[in-house]
Amino acid sequence: MRVLILGGDGYLGWPTAMYFSARGHEVTVVDNFAKRQWEFEHRVAGWKEVTGRSIELRVRDICNHRAVYTLLEEVQPQAIIHYAEQPSAPYSMQTRRTAVHTQTNNLEGTLNLLFAMQRHTPDAHLVKLGTMGEYGTPNIDIEEGYITITHNGRTDTLPFPKQPGSFYHLSKVHDSHNIAFACRLWGLAATDLNQGVVYGLDTDESLMDPRFRTSFHYDHVFGTVLNRFLVQAAAKLPLTVYGAGGQTRGFLNIRDTLQCVELSVLNPAKSREYRVFNQFTEQFSVLQLAAMVQAAGARAGLDVRIERLPNPRVELEAHYYNAKHSKLTDLGLKPVLLTDDVIDSMLATVCAHSANVRLDTIQPTIKWVGGATKPPSAHRTASEWAGDDGAGEIIPLETT
Amino acid sequence: MRVLILGGDGYLGWPTAMYFSARGHEVTVVDNFAKRQWEFEHRVAGWKEVTGRSIELRVRDICNHRAVYTLLEEVQPQAIIHYAEQPSAPYSMQTRRTAVHTQTNNLEGTLNLLFAMQRHTPDAHLVKLGTMGEYGTPNIDIEEGYITITHNGRTDTLPFPKQPGSFYHLSKVHDSHNIAFACRLWGLAATDLNQGVVYGLDTDESLMDPRFRTSFHYDHVFGTVLNRFLVQAAAKLPLTVYGAGGQTRGFLNIRDTLQCVELSVLNPAKSREYRVFNQFTEQFSVLQLAAMVQAAGARAGLDVRIERLPNPRVELEAHYYNAKHSKLTDLGLKPVLLTDDVIDSMLATVCAHSANVRLDTIQPTIKWVGGATKPPSAHRTASEWAGDDGAGEIIPLETT
Repeated sequence: MRVLILGGDGYLGWPTAMYFSARGHEVTVVDNFAKRQWEFEHRVAGWKEVTGRSIELRVRDICNHRAVYTLLEEVQPQAIIHYAEQPSAPYSMQTRRTAVHTQTNNLEGTLNLLFAMQRHTPDAHLVKLGTMGEYGTPNIDIEEGYITITHNGRTDTLPFPKQPGSFYHLSKVHDSHNIAFACRLWGLAATDLNQGVVYGLDTDESLMDPRFRTSFHYDHVFGTVLNRFLVQAAAKLPLTVYGAGGQTRGFLNIRDTLQCVELSVLNPAKSREYRVFNQFTEQFSVLQLAAMVQAAGARAGLDVRIERLPNPRVELEAHYYNAKHSKLTDLGLKPVLLTDDVIDSMLATVCAHSANVRLDTIQPTIKWVGGATKPPSAHRTASEWAGDDGAGEIIPLETT
Repeated sequence: MRVLILGGDGYLGWPTAMYFSARGHEVTVVDNFAKRQWEFEHRVAGWKEVTGRSIELRVRDICNHRAVYTLLEEVQPQAIIHYAEQPSAPYSMQTRRTAVHTQTNNLEGTLNLLFAMQRHTPDAHLVKLGTMGEYGTPNIDIEEGYITITHNGRTDTLPFPKQPGSFYHLSKVHDSHNIAFACRLWGLAATDLNQGVVYGLDTDESLMDPRFRTSFHYDHVFGTVLNRFLVQAAAKLPLTVYGAGGQTRGFLNIRDTLQCVELSVLNPAKSREYRVFNQFTEQFSVLQLAAMVQAAGARAGLDVRIERLPNPRVELEAHYYNAKHSKLTDLGLKPVLLTDDVIDSMLATVCAHSANVRLDTIQPTIKWVGGATKPPSAHRTASEWAGDDGAGEIIPLETT
């Protein structure tokens, strides 16, 4: 099958490209980076060298609609895996500019893609990465995309109500409504993967060669909570829990992201179908995760402490949370769960690289109310942070 | 009270400005037109001349965030009435460019406003015009913004699920989610008026002087269905019903728009409250409206025919529709219903101006699938329509 992967240079994009290529699919990856181009070419060349398989590389920005039209016309993909969005909630909460940029960038890129699909590949299957954060934390069970409501004696199945908690999460809700409409309007086929918080460093393919490693974000802008805790434990810093720590979310291993995307691609949605899968394997509260990393630290001889920080986010810190996630299991997902062995192995890898940790990127400096502030450490000058674009490779809690 | 009206040069904006000014409020109107500036100054001067009351005029585009920040800082409004969005569903469905422009324009302007409010007037009350079209046509009763759902033994009150039917209607759903978040995040106060289809020509103030008339849209891009039927009857053309005509929507008189906006302003939402009112007074199907105009025509000695056109839209043409609209009534709304007298009076006014009707703007040339096509008449050259921006003053069914 010809598979097109948008956002192919990212944390998930690159492992996905290798995973599908390893299974014999014709893979095209797309990204809009500039500095990273040479590195990316180097990795693609390495992949060819090690496995004998080709991955076609194009440098594009999907906010340029002509580039997207030409891309689909030329590649004629059967599946389009869409990771190409600004992925950070804290980034979106820094300033008015980053909020507007996050929403217009994500919305316009996805609209361009939908129009290009309609024009050039109306039968292709769109696999779009959404987020469990679209739902917020309602006081009822979270269903997969839709809920059947009986009201005043009548019944209908309607989109599950959304209560996103950042301008980034809002952009994903906007996308979801736009994609659902495009499926209804033009007969496109789409699967929206409402993904939980991803953790993990390795996939079978990334372990083949040091050049194939994907990025690992533990910073306060693009990092995710378990990755951050592992880095803090390895760096002998306290694990920083925001607020009460009762924030409960769905989590999954990066290996399961790849399985889920593959299952979606191999079992495509039908024309006119806008299908939503909740893509995670286990629920944890932040405090539970901290305790698990503390225990793993103890097994590794590390004295790991847990510290509470004022929560930079506006969110419930203790709430009901029960999200359904059976559709991918029904398709055959075999989860890699967060066992002691899995945590121990991740912690060992992080410890082996602990000299590379950039400690100044961990402490949160973006508040949901008030935006970006100067970092508490002196590692960066105020002027480096004062710009609207302060975020380099920086993050907290879930960003998916 | 100091009232700021964004979009003050429009069909609703100008009558609203006069209405509030007539009641002694300090009114500021804002718009971003260029050609229309002189006309607008002329009207404002006329208003001062006739009534002795001042309306302050600023020419601004709220997509320029600095302009919005300065505006709120200087005016310090207590109420902000926000009509300043691209209002046409057909316009949004013409091309990729008009779809993207509609969504980014509406979303960015409203985000700028929310950030500016947070900075300079956090206690002001935002009265935002939304649309009943945000809900689509679910098979259950439509509630006002929120629905209480009992699911698997638990209960929560959540945002009513949205199924909008055009890129324009989607932009209003995006706005709604953004505004709800801003209220939760920053403690802003907002009322979202999910308005039905507006009809009507006159208000008490617009009748004071010929210069005070508001615009009257009957064309296939910006017009609304009842206005169009009246023009078709006056021009001795058949009333064009799209498809089966069973499309049912909420309707209201422009006089009731003003009452509803006033009731919202005088009874503001509280800090952190995102309040949704369904703003319409009666439900009709398109065929019902056509029959009512046909009967009015008969009373006026006109032989009015009804003709069916292929529906340019993708929508259900027969469906359940029962939308609640009691919150504005509870605040004191006294509806001006669509009686025979009201229709006869509107028809008489339209007939008196029938020589001015631009017949070439009525026939729909924008399809939901396929976008803009050449108009059937030869009144415009193909090149005038070929551009991405073909829409001048052109519309069908509901656009609110």
